[in-house]
Amino acid sequence: MKQSHLFTKTRKEAPKDEVSKNAELLIRGGFIHKEMAGVYSFLPLGLRVLNKVVGIIREEMNKIGGQELALTAIQDKELWEKTGRWSDEVVDSWFKTKLKNGTDVGLGITHEEPLTNLMREHISSYRDLPIFAYQFQTKFRNETRAKSGIVRGREFLMKDLYSFSKDQDEHQRFYDGCRDAYMEIFKRAGIGDKTYVTYASGGIFSKYSDEFQTVSEAGEDIIYVCDKCNRAINEEIAGDAPKCAVCGSTELRKEKAIEVGNIFSLGTKFSEPLGLEYLDAQGEKKLVVMGSYGIGPGRLMGTIVEVLSDEKGIVWPTTVSPFNVHLVEIASENPEVKKWAEHIYKELSKTVEVLYDDRDRRAGEKFADSDLIGIPYRLVISEKNLNEKMIEVKERKSSNVEMIGENELLRGEWKKFTE
Amino acid sequence: MKQSHLFTKTRKEAPKDEVSKNAELLIRGGFIHKEMAGVYSFLPLGLRVLNKVVGIIREEMNKIGGQELALTAIQDKELWEKTGRWSDEVVDSWFKTKLKNGTDVGLGITHEEPLTNLMREHISSYRDLPIFAYQFQTKFRNETRAKSGIVRGREFLMKDLYSFSKDQDEHQRFYDGCRDAYMEIFKRAGIGDKTYVTYASGGIFSKYSDEFQTVSEAGEDIIYVCDKCNRAINEEIAGDAPKCAVCGSTELRKEKAIEVGNIFSLGTKFSEPLGLEYLDAQGEKKLVVMGSYGIGPGRLMGTIVEVLSDEKGIVWPTTVSPFNVHLVEIASENPEVKKWAEHIYKELSKTVEVLYDDRDRRAGEKFADSDLIGIPYRLVISEKNLNEKMIEVKERKSSNVEMIGENELLRGEWKKFTE
Repeated sequence: MKQSHLFTKTRKEAPKDEVSKNAELLIRGGFIHKEMAGVYSFLPLGLRVLNKVVGIIREEMNKIGGQELALTAIQDKELWEKTGRWSDEVVDSWFKTKLKNGTDVGLGITHEEPLTNLMREHISSYRDLPIFAYQFQTKFRNETRAKSGIVRGREFLMKDLYSFSKDQDEHQRFYDGCRDAYMEIFKRAGIGDKTYVTYASGGIFSKYSDEFQTVSEAGEDIIYVCDKCNRAINEEIAGDAPKCAVCGSTELRKEKAIEVGNIFSLGTKFSEPLGLEYLDAQGEKKLVVMGSYGIGPGRLMGTIVEVLSDEKGIVWPTTVSPFNVHLVEIASENPEVKKWAEHIYKELSKTVEVLYDDRDRRAGEKFADSDLIGIPYRLVISEKNLNEKMIEVKERKSSNVEMIGENELLRGEWKKFTE
Repeated sequence: MKQSHLFTKTRKEAPKDEVSKNAELLIRGGFIHKEMAGVYSFLPLGLRVLNKVVGIIREEMNKIGGQELALTAIQDKELWEKTGRWSDEVVDSWFKTKLKNGTDVGLGITHEEPLTNLMREHISSYRDLPIFAYQFQTKFRNETRAKSGIVRGREFLMKDLYSFSKDQDEHQRFYDGCRDAYMEIFKRAGIGDKTYVTYASGGIFSKYSDEFQTVSEAGEDIIYVCDKCNRAINEEIAGDAPKCAVCGSTELRKEKAIEVGNIFSLGTKFSEPLGLEYLDAQGEKKLVVMGSYGIGPGRLMGTIVEVLSDEKGIVWPTTVSPFNVHLVEIASENPEVKKWAEHIYKELSKTVEVLYDDRDRRAGEKFADSDLIGIPYRLVISEKNLNEKMIEVKERKSSNVEMIGENELLRGEWKKFTE
């Protein structure tokens, strides 16, 4: 894409009321727009990143047998009354509104109730199980404070998967597989080495649930990391003398962390009040055993910005960058320079996603924009290297700079200099 | 995908309160689930169709220079007060709710206001124009009656594009190009021959707007079609003596029709109250000239069902079908049959999307499900053709049946028999 065609502009300053680093950088780079606290629109660059994050999560959910669907935001009060989660005294983050006829409806904060109800039409026998259904869907949560940018929004995209199993064994097998799939997602998204499976409180159906916590100064949680086991324990269950839940060690590292995902065993908490049953092989009625598994793609994107950016701007991992390379043409009076840049743009675009800065701006301004936007590789086309047809390659992460010939560049060999 | 793995089941009957044909068939086929009137979830089969419709629209919007973004559902009251569209007396389809601190917010019925406001940060000079920005985003409209299935919902996906131009000429060029792109979309979606560009009232900035009306008994609109010009005129502006707005003919065909899209010239209706200005080449301040362009992918999907289904079920066009072919294995005690079917499934899946009915059900039940689900080609694997390795190919649309050899099938030659 030509940058002259991209309608967004970078900004020197974020809105004054913006206190989170992720929102500040994403707004300055033209990735998102703040509609109000906790409510952000995604601009073209931001949507490209979000879609790549979604793509990684979708692949991993499909690998473990997930079937994608899309539930609705508008929620039927009656279903939530059956599970006791309609009352504002129980769940304090509802947005509620009314149909024209006066019927109360809510905006989905999560989707256990509607999906459990829906499954009653599709589950009747043990032969129908297990089922793993997931969606990417907009959630609404009426947060009192919303100061963490896209890490904690009032309206945000969520990947939520729900598992429906015959019994605890079948449930546990999927639960364990999903835990691994989650770690694979965070690894692919570039924050695997900072993210820990973290024991957290499990509610009434299991001793623990698993959170996925990414170490970051912007985190709202405190975790204790055991470097031997590569696991952590959340402060909320660690008590006064934190020890590793795996090896028992008390030599733990205390860290602030962002919860980038969580998985829960739900037992029959929802299948019982909503009547989700099946007939087992002996013809006996049984309750379906459930689990729920959440990742917010926007929160994950915000976390990547929190933990990988530097003083110049964002540093995207290659897997989620809005473009693979940022081709920067240094404006010149020599028309051959633009011609050459256009040629490189056209050829490179056949195999990779290129953002081509063809704008008539000063080099310094272009470089500053490029650092702020954070595409992993910057390729500079300038008059001084026109005769030799050499291109300057700079890796955003390391700031390593190398020169590379046009032919090597077009074969994708810029990566070997910088990795 | 193996049908035994697909969690949805077909149903003999739709819910009793469902009066629209599209929802009835889509619910029976396992494409959608009714949460309440006008609020439908999309199940795996339905989501596949919806995503294909979205894919066609996205391609055509990108071709005419559209840049994709994603605005939010939650709307700031202040912006809508500036344009006079906040009051329930002016716009009677708002869903409204409140933040914890008591601030009123609405759920987006459309997005002229927030996008116009957002563009103030990105448009300052004539060099920034034109801009064509679009999204696929969930709209909320508090319809009093919602009895048309996914053709008119209270919560529905919308593709809305907004154009920002320097002047009326620049605006008109895009508007005309978008009209053509829309017709291309309806053609690709299989309803081009039933869909007419239809003159409708234009509001205060132009004499006409253009609606795209698909002739259907389920339609809520009345149009007069001129078969000479391949254009129509909406009853609302036709008056007592309808005549073609192009050729003046009064020999028009009166039809019921579904509005599958519309495009509007907005002039400065939104840029003026929201202050969206630019500096022209002479350094003078000018108001940006706008247009808006809508298609509901769910409504389009519902319209396809309304106009192309038959007494046996849905008939998907190849372009939006959830799968390319429906491979049906006739259950047999001879294990070679399943082995052969599995082989065909595996090989075919390398090049096309296959739904493979591997279930242990009677042939009649499988054929009825296949007709209901409506995939364009049904490929039957049965014991009686095992020795000759011949497969029965049936086109859903025409009911034409042909026999084809395995090798020809795997080369994709089933199409030539049926087209």
